[in-house]
Amino acid sequence: MVVIMEQGASESEIEAVINNLNAFGFDVHRSSGVNHTVLGAIGVKPGFDIRIIRVLDGVADVQRVTEPYKFASRAWKNEPSILEIGSARVGGTEVVIMAGPCAVESEEQINITAAHVASHGATFLRGGAFKPRTSPYSFQGMGEAGLRLLRAAADRYGLGVITEVTDVTKVDLVYSYTDVFQVGARNMQNFGLLKVLGRKDKAVLLKRGLSATIEEWLMAAEYIMSQGNPHIILCERGIRTFETYTRNTLDLSAVPVIKRKSHLPIIVDPSHGTGLRNKVTPMARAAVAAGADGIMVEVHPDPAAAKSDGPQSLYFEQFAELVRQIRDIARAIGRDVPVAQATPSDA
Amino acid sequence: MVVIMEQGASESEIEAVINNLNAFGFDVHRSSGVNHTVLGAIGVKPGFDIRIIRVLDGVADVQRVTEPYKFASRAWKNEPSILEIGSARVGGTEVVIMAGPCAVESEEQINITAAHVASHGATFLRGGAFKPRTSPYSFQGMGEAGLRLLRAAADRYGLGVITEVTDVTKVDLVYSYTDVFQVGARNMQNFGLLKVLGRKDKAVLLKRGLSATIEEWLMAAEYIMSQGNPHIILCERGIRTFETYTRNTLDLSAVPVIKRKSHLPIIVDPSHGTGLRNKVTPMARAAVAAGADGIMVEVHPDPAAAKSDGPQSLYFEQFAELVRQIRDIARAIGRDVPVAQATPSDA
Amino acid sequence: MVVIMEQGASESEIEAVINNLNAFGFDVHRSSGVNHTVLGAIGVKPGFDIRIIRVLDGVADVQRVTEPYKFASRAWKNEPSILEIGSARVGGTEVVIMAGPCAVESEEQINITAAHVASHGATFLRGGAFKPRTSPYSFQGMGEAGLRLLRAAADRYGLGVITEVTDVTKVDLVYSYTDVFQVGARNMQNFGLLKVLGRKDKAVLLKRGLSATIEEWLMAAEYIMSQGNPHIILCERGIRTFETYTRNTLDLSAVPVIKRKSHLPIIVDPSHGTGLRNKVTPMARAAVAAGADGIMVEVHPDPAAAKSDGPQSLYFEQFAELVRQIRDIARAIGRDVPVAQATPSDA
Amino acid sequence: MVVIMEQGASESEIEAVINNLNAFGFDVHRSSGVNHTVLGAIGVKPGFDIRIIRVLDGVADVQRVTEPYKFASRAWKNEPSILEIGSARVGGTEVVIMAGPCAVESEEQINITAAHVASHGATFLRGGAFKPRTSPYSFQGMGEAGLRLLRAAADRYGLGVITEVTDVTKVDLVYSYTDVFQVGARNMQNFGLLKVLGRKDKAVLLKRGLSATIEEWLMAAEYIMSQGNPHIILCERGIRTFETYTRNTLDLSAVPVIKRKSHLPIIVDPSHGTGLRNKVTPMARAAVAAGADGIMVEVHPDPAAAKSDGPQSLYFEQFAELVRQIRDIARAIGRDVPVAQATPSDA
Repeated sequence: MVVIMEQGASESEIEAVINNLNAFGFDVHRSSGVNHTVLGAIGVKPGFDIRIIRVLDGVADVQRVTEPYKFASRAWKNEPSILEIGSARVGGTEVVIMAGPCAVESEEQINITAAHVASHGATFLRGGAFKPRTSPYSFQGMGEAGLRLLRAAADRYGLGVITEVTDVTKVDLVYSYTDVFQVGARNMQNFGLLKVLGRKDKAVLLKRGLSATIEEWLMAAEYIMSQGNPHIILCERGIRTFETYTRNTLDLSAVPVIKRKSHLPIIVDPSHGTGLRNKVTPMARAAVAAGADGIMVEVHPDPAAAKSDGPQSLYFEQFAELVRQIRDIARAIGRDVPVAQATPSDA
Repeated sequence: MVVIMEQGASESEIEAVINNLNAFGFDVHRSSGVNHTVLGAIGVKPGFDIRIIRVLDGVADVQRVTEPYKFASRAWKNEPSILEIGSARVGGTEVVIMAGPCAVESEEQINITAAHVASHGATFLRGGAFKPRTSPYSFQGMGEAGLRLLRAAADRYGLGVITEVTDVTKVDLVYSYTDVFQVGARNMQNFGLLKVLGRKDKAVLLKRGLSATIEEWLMAAEYIMSQGNPHIILCERGIRTFETYTRNTLDLSAVPVIKRKSHLPIIVDPSHGTGLRNKVTPMARAAVAAGADGIMVEVHPDPAAAKSDGPQSLYFEQFAELVRQIRDIARAIGRDVPVAQATPSDA
Repeated sequence: MVVIMEQGASESEIEAVINNLNAFGFDVHRSSGVNHTVLGAIGVKPGFDIRIIRVLDGVADVQRVTEPYKFASRAWKNEPSILEIGSARVGGTEVVIMAGPCAVESEEQINITAAHVASHGATFLRGGAFKPRTSPYSFQGMGEAGLRLLRAAADRYGLGVITEVTDVTKVDLVYSYTDVFQVGARNMQNFGLLKVLGRKDKAVLLKRGLSATIEEWLMAAEYIMSQGNPHIILCERGIRTFETYTRNTLDLSAVPVIKRKSHLPIIVDPSHGTGLRNKVTPMARAAVAAGADGIMVEVHPDPAAAKSDGPQSLYFEQFAELVRQIRDIARAIGRDVPVAQATPSDA
Repeated sequence: MVVIMEQGASESEIEAVINNLNAFGFDVHRSSGVNHTVLGAIGVKPGFDIRIIRVLDGVADVQRVTEPYKFASRAWKNEPSILEIGSARVGGTEVVIMAGPCAVESEEQINITAAHVASHGATFLRGGAFKPRTSPYSFQGMGEAGLRLLRAAADRYGLGVITEVTDVTKVDLVYSYTDVFQVGARNMQNFGLLKVLGRKDKAVLLKRGLSATIEEWLMAAEYIMSQGNPHIILCERGIRTFETYTRNTLDLSAVPVIKRKSHLPIIVDPSHGTGLRNKVTPMARAAVAAGADGIMVEVHPDPAAAKSDGPQSLYFEQFAELVRQIRDIARAIGRDVPVAQATPSDA
């Protein structure tokens, strides 16, 4: 931590700050310039609230030297983390595709979707069984019956399962069906949930909150990792800005930023990021071009009849075309999209 | 719902939209202008996703006619709701003061604070026992022991209790100690928690999420109200913007907006809104001048030693001066701050 | 400037940074901790782009020690600047009222408005003659004829004139009619205009840009001051955020922030900040309660017929009531609104 | 325009609104549902302020049916505009590269850069002669001498010139040297400048303002087009959000949005959008993948010594690699980057 004293700070103010820092266990280096005295406070105190020093008399500003997170940082681990989940490798040269409907609605719907996405190179089947909805009057998901259908469909076509857990009370239930826990944007700082997931041995896909800075996002990952679970996938899905034409503003520059600050893999969800189908394909392409480790997209056999988020779900043929395009883009930057793992049952 | 067709939309496109609306149970009025056909869809379908119509061919735009919330709206109840909680009346002419430390730390700390705030006109004692913290390495609260101390201190000085519930698993525990459940900004869209609180008979103070629009905030209130609990107090505490000098940007214009759109009382928390002590007093004054039904402020007997949020906590004498100022401002606009209820034990 | 080297930065990287800083004329203090080396660069280089150092190898972060502005800072002048303009004193204990229509439309309109606002304590008459409008198809102002009417009306009722200058080519023309130049939010970083105004001897009211940080705003003031003109009034008028219910989000916390960082007076414009008439009065009250040195409001004898911004203009009786309320609030915090200077001609 | 009356609006309120609309020249269709009366106002009044109707008694909401811009819209021209400027075609299948230093600094600097970028497929040379800088103490550009060097270097290597015009007083000067006028983000709503450029016969590259919505951006284009100049290139360069790690948040979803709402070409500037060199290449790739018609990047022979924006300027070899990558990505989506036009003089 670096403490910058105000121009004209008195000697007694400077000493009071030094005493304060010592009391918190910091060693202090003092450096006096022409106009300002600067204090370097040495020592790592994770979670220390720097405002405690900022409000002292004579202090102009306080800056942290180290990142507030540890396990999520490049300082902790300098090569990319690669997560091996079933046959997929997330975070390596492979560009991973997670696809499926917003919500599981029926056995037929999830099976036909699983067959289609598997036949085009997806390695994970997504689908919600518990849906957090802005309105209490909207469809809230099939619950455990949905999880059962999702698991069965994924198994039939050799896919991994990713599904959202909305609540601490549902962690064990979801655990028994999924390969990857999804934590939604609204739950990114549901610290009780993060801690419980930190004691599980399955991977967590952590979506960025609508108004979360990159630092807060990595701090949320730190909550999970600090409990012992290092298997985290970050997922950019759009932040809230003043622009209203798109539902959110997909922040693709988060991809190179995360790659520099952390070893964790990062994927992009262009469906929630844009909220409208005809923006999904260009933004998925852009995500891969920016260096994302994968994409998560909503696909539905009949988007017009979908019980939730139909307007942002791709038609089957749009999904197939999307995969063709991103495979070419991945190659242009030395990466690859896996080839189909299953015999296409719907082609 | 009003559907605006594109200039040049074909007759078959228009008919397809009408059929679609009929299928969802809407009656449709058609109105053709020189350039545009406009369809009025009559019928109330709470939670209907208007993007379903927006993505149809030939549709230029779709606008909702009714607010997506019902119980929280002025259309449902056109006079202000007044909540009677103990001796306090929230939402009437009274300007309510909720005060206390960020976190309960010890019996002495909470007792001395309760005595002080009661002697200056506060009617609620606040204090956290379960603290949601950005860092896993920060103080997380005293838990039930803290609740017990909080209740005892409030009872001794004739105050109501308000404290945060962070999780569905803690609702029953908090219920047995508190008068008002506080739902924090990060939990504003924790829908599972909102539903459980909607089935309780105690009031809920619902903080606005950092990136929540006013409409989403009222929808969160609707989640609680739709389960049967009408006792809601809204609390503005700052939204996230590009400005970084203050922790958040306190959006005081939310006060007159809420007063127009809803019958629910609204109070303002200037401590979290600004994050620095010397901004709390001017912004608390501004909140009352803008028409807020109360304020919630952090007060601590020794802010420099506080275990959390010390830098934004007021000193005792600052709190006393703050109350004097807002009492004068309340009178200037025809309202009042209650006089002290207890014999000042610290004056 | 403080340079924080990465953990594990090599000795040659550290030396390269030191050489670089020396080449730019900084003296460097080196301080080595357990994990990090910190370099203090001493010397004031206004306008130095710290990213030059940030991109060097081995650098983790760079922080400025001094504010990037000089004349606008408290370090330069530690007591509040008070501007004496005609009979008004801006920045003292007086709460100044600037009022008038959005645009000058006719002799009758501006005269009747001037009479009304003067009779209630306003000391400045505002009114636009050159209107920057979002649409090229909107009314663009009366031009010089408007300036002439504005000046005459103000003189008749003992008011000062404040009016907007939109362009370097209009500075001399506006100079001959106004007492205070208004620089609009969209022109806050029109640096050519700022420089020309910096060489004039009349005060400048500088509105905050829609997406300007407080620091950028003070830098814009610095542009004017660095040319020799110290007579600046800052004006908060709302920033752009994700909330769409109000036109902009009025950032009242800017008032205490500016009071701490600068000696310049600050007033608030609640008309543009909210964009709707029924929000103007509560937000004007809140501005005064927060400590603003004045308010600027739009008033029109017939808002429904106004050629621009009618929906946010106050009716005459609303303005009179507004002044009554803010006078009481000003007194509650030890300030005052001047009494009427002119014989009310319309009462 | 569609006017939605409040539930329970009285007949006299409805009639007052109809009369008001008629007075402004609208034809009104009335449609009464169970709860609401909806009025369709037919007639095109560009620049009409819908708040005039919104503030009338009994009105719940007002929505525009038509876009507020005309010449910039797809309704006006439904195929993409292709601008032919010298040998370049902007807006067709070609992905155009505009490259060069932030500021022209010397004859050698601009010549060597022109040679390099031309040899890799750039068709425009960029370079500032008048620099709008946040600080009055920063380098402000070489002025006309810079324009002369820029033109000469571009001519030598067969490139077009694009350079910024900061002020109405400089339009004629810049006109005599440039092929494309650049309007910077801070000037996007400098309406006086836009109008003057609207009467010229050279193309205008219009950067999006930091806090401009897409609609406001198109309205700024409309200002130019309404004066007779249809040759507009839009340029996304990042918007201001709460995220501070990058200088701005590059909003790539603006690319597909603009493609749908307008016929104008759109390019992307990843240098200003991100502010740091190592983010430029991934974001340039992403821009092309999203469907942009070109990119504008800063390149400098010696970024560490650049007089402005060195930290975001690419090294020569980085630029060469960037072009290789985006050429492959362009092909993956059926477009192309032109091959080098000049004999490389520096290879």
